[in-house]
Amino acid sequence: MKAARFYDKFDIRIENIDPPIPKEDEVLIDIAWGGICGTDLHEYTVGPLVIPTKERPSVSTGDSLPVTIGHEFNGRIAQAPEGAVSADGTQLKVGMPVMCDPRLNCRSCFSCNAGSTNICGKWGFLGLSGGSGGGFSEEVAVRADMCYPLPEELRLDHAVLIEPLAVGRRAVRQADIADEKFKDTSILVVGGGPVGFSVLCNLKALGATQIYVSEPTALRQKQCEGWCEKVFNPLEQKVPDECRKLTGGKGVDLVFDCAGITPGMKDGFDALRPTGTYVNVAGWETQFVLPMGLFMMKELILKTSLAYDDKDFAAVVKDFVAGKYAGAESMITARVALDDLVQQGFEALVKHKDQHSKIIATPRAELLSQGNSNGL
Amino acid sequence: MKAARFYDKFDIRIENIDPPIPKEDEVLIDIAWGGICGTDLHEYTVGPLVIPTKERPSVSTGDSLPVTIGHEFNGRIAQAPEGAVSADGTQLKVGMPVMCDPRLNCRSCFSCNAGSTNICGKWGFLGLSGGSGGGFSEEVAVRADMCYPLPEELRLDHAVLIEPLAVGRRAVRQADIADEKFKDTSILVVGGGPVGFSVLCNLKALGATQIYVSEPTALRQKQCEGWCEKVFNPLEQKVPDECRKLTGGKGVDLVFDCAGITPGMKDGFDALRPTGTYVNVAGWETQFVLPMGLFMMKELILKTSLAYDDKDFAAVVKDFVAGKYAGAESMITARVALDDLVQQGFEALVKHKDQHSKIIATPRAELLSQGNSNGL
Repeated sequence: MKAARFYDKFDIRIENIDPPIPKEDEVLIDIAWGGICGTDLHEYTVGPLVIPTKERPSVSTGDSLPVTIGHEFNGRIAQAPEGAVSADGTQLKVGMPVMCDPRLNCRSCFSCNAGSTNICGKWGFLGLSGGSGGGFSEEVAVRADMCYPLPEELRLDHAVLIEPLAVGRRAVRQADIADEKFKDTSILVVGGGPVGFSVLCNLKALGATQIYVSEPTALRQKQCEGWCEKVFNPLEQKVPDECRKLTGGKGVDLVFDCAGITPGMKDGFDALRPTGTYVNVAGWETQFVLPMGLFMMKELILKTSLAYDDKDFAAVVKDFVAGKYAGAESMITARVALDDLVQQGFEALVKHKDQHSKIIATPRAELLSQGNSNGL
Repeated sequence: MKAARFYDKFDIRIENIDPPIPKEDEVLIDIAWGGICGTDLHEYTVGPLVIPTKERPSVSTGDSLPVTIGHEFNGRIAQAPEGAVSADGTQLKVGMPVMCDPRLNCRSCFSCNAGSTNICGKWGFLGLSGGSGGGFSEEVAVRADMCYPLPEELRLDHAVLIEPLAVGRRAVRQADIADEKFKDTSILVVGGGPVGFSVLCNLKALGATQIYVSEPTALRQKQCEGWCEKVFNPLEQKVPDECRKLTGGKGVDLVFDCAGITPGMKDGFDALRPTGTYVNVAGWETQFVLPMGLFMMKELILKTSLAYDDKDFAAVVKDFVAGKYAGAESMITARVALDDLVQQGFEALVKHKDQHSKIIATPRAELLSQGNSNGL
C-alpha cells in the first residue's frame, strides 16, 4: 500500500510498504482523510522532534524512523475481529465509518490511572511513533477501543477535524473555568492558525462571547472573524493595549497561546489582568523565557495543554455529531491526494502560510472528486 | 536620627537624617527590630532593582534613591493622633508594641478592589520605595491601619519574623490546597534560606508532613531538620530521584522554589508528579527559561507568590501570637546594632552565607544586651 514516510526534515517520501497486520485488539481501517497538524509541520521543518530516531527509539512502540506520518485521520473499518468493540461500546463492523483517536498509552502508569492518558509516561501517537502506521497511507491498524463510529451521513472530510478540535477542547478545559462562567470571561487567543481556530470553536461551543484573536495573516484573520468579537493584527496594533481598552482597563481574564513565539507570548502576558491565566497550547521551537516582571507583579497562573484525553476526544465526537462545531470546516483550505501530500500539503504550508490553514489528504482518488467526500 | 540609606549596590550608609513627620493617618514608631530580607540583599549586590532611581521614581511615593531601607520591622508607638485605629480595630496609644505591615498601595485599583493589595498597580514598600522611612532607622511613620498591636510579653526580636512568615503564608496559600489536604500532600521546598524556612514554618502550621527540602549549605540544612521529613544536598544528591523514591515513583505534588536559580528550578520541575504545581516564591537575578519538555509532558501548573495581602499578614500576626510558629526564631542567626548593619549584616550575608540565615538589627543598644530583647 501507499504511505507517506518521514525520513528526516524536508524528507517525506510516498512509498509502497506492506499494510499493517492488526493485532488481536486492533481493527484495520481503510483511510478516508488525514489532516496535516502543526506538529507534523514542526517535524518537517526542524524535526525529528517527537518522531523517534535510532538513538532515541519510541518508548511506546520501540520503533524509529522512517515512520508513517499523519495522526489526524478517519476512515472505514476494513477488518474487525469478532467482538471488536469501539470506545463508546459499539460492535465494530466492516464498512462502518469511524474517527480514530491515534494516541498510544500504557493504561497502567500513575498518569493513566489518574485518567490523564494524554500525559502517559509511555506516550506515543500513531502517525508519529511508528507502530501500526499512520493517517497518510491507505490502511492503518488501530485499537478497537480507540475508534468512534460516526453516522453514515456525516462528511468524513469534515469529521477529520475532530482530532484538532479535541486539542482545543482540552486547552479550554485546562483553563478550569465552569462552563456557565465562559460567557463572562474575556479571552485573548494568540494565533489564529488551526490550533487557535480549534480553541475558538470550542470557546464558542461553551458560550464564550468576549473573545479576541491576535493573528498577523489576512487569510487566518478572515477565518477567525465571525468566531470572535475582534481580530487584531499584532504587526500593526499593540494587542495588550487593545485588550485593556475592551476590558475597562483591566486586561483579559484568560490567554490561549496558540502561536508559540516570543512576541505573541509577551503580548499575552502583558494583556492579562492581575491573577489571570495563560494557557500554552503551542509547540515551541525556541526557548520560552518567562516574562518574570509581569508574571510576579500580576501573580499570573501558567498552564499548558497537551493533546487530549479519552474524555476530551469522546466529548468532541459527540458534540461534532450533534452539530455544535458547524462551520469549523472553514478551517480546511485544501484537499489533496496522498500522492501530492509533500508538494501540495507540507510545502504549501511552508511556502504559502498566508494562503492556508488546515490541509487534508486522502489516498482515495474518488473522494477528491466526490461532492460529499464521504464514500469509499 | 540614624538611618541606613541605600545609595547604590554595595553602598549603604548609616547617616543622620531628620525623623519623618507623620501624616494625618500615620503614627510614629520607635523602631525595635528590623530584619534583612533577601530582597534587600538583591538590592545590595545587584541593585537598584525595586529601589527607585531618578530615572525610575517610585510609582507609590514619587521618591528615588537614596532611600532608608528595611521593610521587616516592629517597635513601639511614639506618637499617635487622637483616634488612631490599628489594622485590627484597636485604639493605638503611645508605648504600645506593634508589628508593621510595610506595604504601600492605592486601595483603589482593580487589584486592590479585588483584595489583592499585594499586586496593586501602585505597589511599594516602606524601606524600599522611600516615603516615610524604613526599618533600619530609629523612627518610621506608618499608616495606623497597617499596625498590629502585639502582646507586651511577646519578644519583639522574634515577632519581627512575622513579616517574612507572611511571605511564606501567601506562598502556601497560592498552592490552592484546602488546609485539611496538606497532610496528604508531598512537597519539595527548594532552598532552605529565610524564605524557604518561612514556607516550611507555614506548611508545618497547616499540618503538612511529607515535606522535603533541597539546600546545599550545612547551617541551613541543620535549621530545616526537624521541620521536614528529609533534607537533601543538591550538590551531592539527585533531588528529583530522591523525591520519586519517597513518593512511590510518582514525584511530589507541590514544589516551592525559594532559591531562584536555574539548577534548583530544573530539579523542581523534574521532581514534580504529572499535573503537579510549582510555586515560585524567589526573586530571580537570571532569566527563567521554562523547561518546556517537563512542563508540557506533565501538564504542570506554574504559579507565583508576591509578598502578602492584608489577610495573610493578619493571619500570621494572629497565629504568631497564638504560638503556632514556635521555634521559627531559630532562623535568626545574628542580632546586630544598626551602626554595624553593613559589615555585620549585609556583608556577613554576602561573605558567610553558610553561617547565616536571618540577621536582624536594632537602633537601640539596650535591646542588644537585654535578655528578652523586648524593652524600650
